[in-house]
Amino acid sequence: MTSTPDRVAIVGTGLIGTSIGLAAARVGCTVAGWDAEPSIARRASQIGGFRAAVSMDDAVSDADIVVVATPIPAIAGLVARVLESAPGAVVTDVGSVKSHVLADVTSAVPLADLRRYVPGHPMGGSERSGPEHASASIVDGIVWVVSPPHQADLTRIERLEGWIARIGAQVVRMDPGRHDRLVAFVSHLPQVASTALMDLAATEEADEPELLLLAAGGFRDLTRLASSNPALWSDILLSNREAIAEALDIYAARLQALRRQILEGDGVGVETTFERAKVARLRLATKATVRAGVAVLQVPVPDRPGALASLTAALGEGGVNIEDLQIVHSPEGGRGTVHLMVATDAAGSAATVLAANDFDPTRLA
Amino acid sequence: MTSTPDRVAIVGTGLIGTSIGLAAARVGCTVAGWDAEPSIARRASQIGGFRAAVSMDDAVSDADIVVVATPIPAIAGLVARVLESAPGAVVTDVGSVKSHVLADVTSAVPLADLRRYVPGHPMGGSERSGPEHASASIVDGIVWVVSPPHQADLTRIERLEGWIARIGAQVVRMDPGRHDRLVAFVSHLPQVASTALMDLAATEEADEPELLLLAAGGFRDLTRLASSNPALWSDILLSNREAIAEALDIYAARLQALRRQILEGDGVGVETTFERAKVARLRLATKATVRAGVAVLQVPVPDRPGALASLTAALGEGGVNIEDLQIVHSPEGGRGTVHLMVATDAAGSAATVLAANDFDPTRLA
Repeated sequence: MTSTPDRVAIVGTGLIGTSIGLAAARVGCTVAGWDAEPSIARRASQIGGFRAAVSMDDAVSDADIVVVATPIPAIAGLVARVLESAPGAVVTDVGSVKSHVLADVTSAVPLADLRRYVPGHPMGGSERSGPEHASASIVDGIVWVVSPPHQADLTRIERLEGWIARIGAQVVRMDPGRHDRLVAFVSHLPQVASTALMDLAATEEADEPELLLLAAGGFRDLTRLASSNPALWSDILLSNREAIAEALDIYAARLQALRRQILEGDGVGVETTFERAKVARLRLATKATVRAGVAVLQVPVPDRPGALASLTAALGEGGVNIEDLQIVHSPEGGRGTVHLMVATDAAGSAATVLAANDFDPTRLA
Repeated sequence: MTSTPDRVAIVGTGLIGTSIGLAAARVGCTVAGWDAEPSIARRASQIGGFRAAVSMDDAVSDADIVVVATPIPAIAGLVARVLESAPGAVVTDVGSVKSHVLADVTSAVPLADLRRYVPGHPMGGSERSGPEHASASIVDGIVWVVSPPHQADLTRIERLEGWIARIGAQVVRMDPGRHDRLVAFVSHLPQVASTALMDLAATEEADEPELLLLAAGGFRDLTRLASSNPALWSDILLSNREAIAEALDIYAARLQALRRQILEGDGVGVETTFERAKVARLRLATKATVRAGVAVLQVPVPDRPGALASLTAALGEGGVNIEDLQIVHSPEGGRGTVHLMVATDAAGSAATVLAANDFDPTRLA
């Protein structure tokens, strides 16, 4: 690792690119940004406090690290251009799918350049877009997958990983095929399952106008992802089609098995499956999955006006930052319990503050 | 409708039964409660402030309205007993499935009694159980489906509906078969889809220990329901098997159609489906579905410590009660936006209070 500050170039200064630029700038990196749309680069540079480059070459030519942060269809072409224009840089990208992009890059660049290409996937973001909504905190504590091809140079891989850790994320290295198979299960399949359910309900609603009147918290949870960006998701899904088809086949088989148990009245079978899933879900809830250093407190919300306000106010006054807060819905909606995520070293004081304010927190993780 | 206060009996004083008892007591009804487990009835009577009956007969004999609030397998038998013991009462239940229970009751009681049985399904609850967690607010504003059989007496139906509205819920009348078909789509199918996804991921995790490290907000949303009570759900699903099997078949066909489009690289097809689902989901988000008289405000949560605390505190100080609060997750987790539900007549002051505290609320509904 170099001891001088890194020179970082961001190619594509939307929400993710600008957020990464902000996270890099706060640890002392010199950041230049470029976007195919000059007005976006200008707005990003004002928000991100970095230099708006006049051309892609201008942005990347003397960079140590270049982050290509564009939608999937543009990544391979830009990576190839950047590898040529920035002979000294480690080049990465932030695409949600890795193998497909890597294949395109591999066929387009000489081996010597490929050794400097270390693809990545920060597992964070926001449903919003554009540099206006960027924030360095989008990078904080997230899992950032690094998926180097076998041709990549180990020194360059470690250089990039050191930098990712320095700007605040948690590096997980895995080969591109494995990354794509895993995200097919935990990201792409849920997206397809959610969209299909919402689309189905919308069709049924045409015949049954009261259908969604009966849709409570559970349905809302299941279909939240269905409001995601269609064009973005079409690109992602088509870039990982075999892995997604396989995940969908396994999912269809599980649904079919449950269907059979239900139709045959196999209560023991249904209950066994539900019990297994429940155990796994509770394990997930009590696990700091995405964010390292975060504790989870379960807090029942009593039935009095302003209970949630007094919960969050008490924590604010007690100097405890809320990392995330989730109202846990019951199977059919209604009142519930709050899952509160705070930094691990603040968990003790959070519990104390809550107890002093008549809450009854239980630490889950 | 009677002008004297109703005499209400609750048979099964768990969370739902006791909550209904509390809601009835607060509008002046005389309430008696009975439970097959005497210790539960005693605790419930202390919490609900109602009389703990010494026997089921004692609870129901002079009641105007009897609510059977037990798990599904016990409902039909108890309804038949209550109809016999309470000759003057309208008898209802709160089961999640209607046709199956009704068939059992129909075969067990004389027609004259059946005219007084008006099944119902309050679409609310909590993931907790037991009278300790009961609250009258569980009834507030929820949709309460009333599903009378064709033999039911109109006067009795209207009597029950008037009482439900009086204790705070919103009556939606539909026949039992239609109720069961609709909840198969919006409640039972989501439950099965969520459980199958979690179960599948748990199996894959055995081979891929890092799988759930990559699971962000979307996966968490989709699998939240999977932590529901297995025995309860087994009873529900097996009592509505044909409607659920049909919903699962339609869902499987949708998933299969998307799988084909993805595998064939039909980007236009995928995007069209996603666009349609997105429009439907946004329509759902902006619709006061379950709770009448509730407005939805969308509020971006800025990147500063205590932002959520200051949001809820500001509303508390401004005298605005938060009905529900949802952190809207992005497709891959990360920061988001808060959806805030407040009473319709408080929406204006909520927006004013938030704007005065540097938030930028948008009213969605």
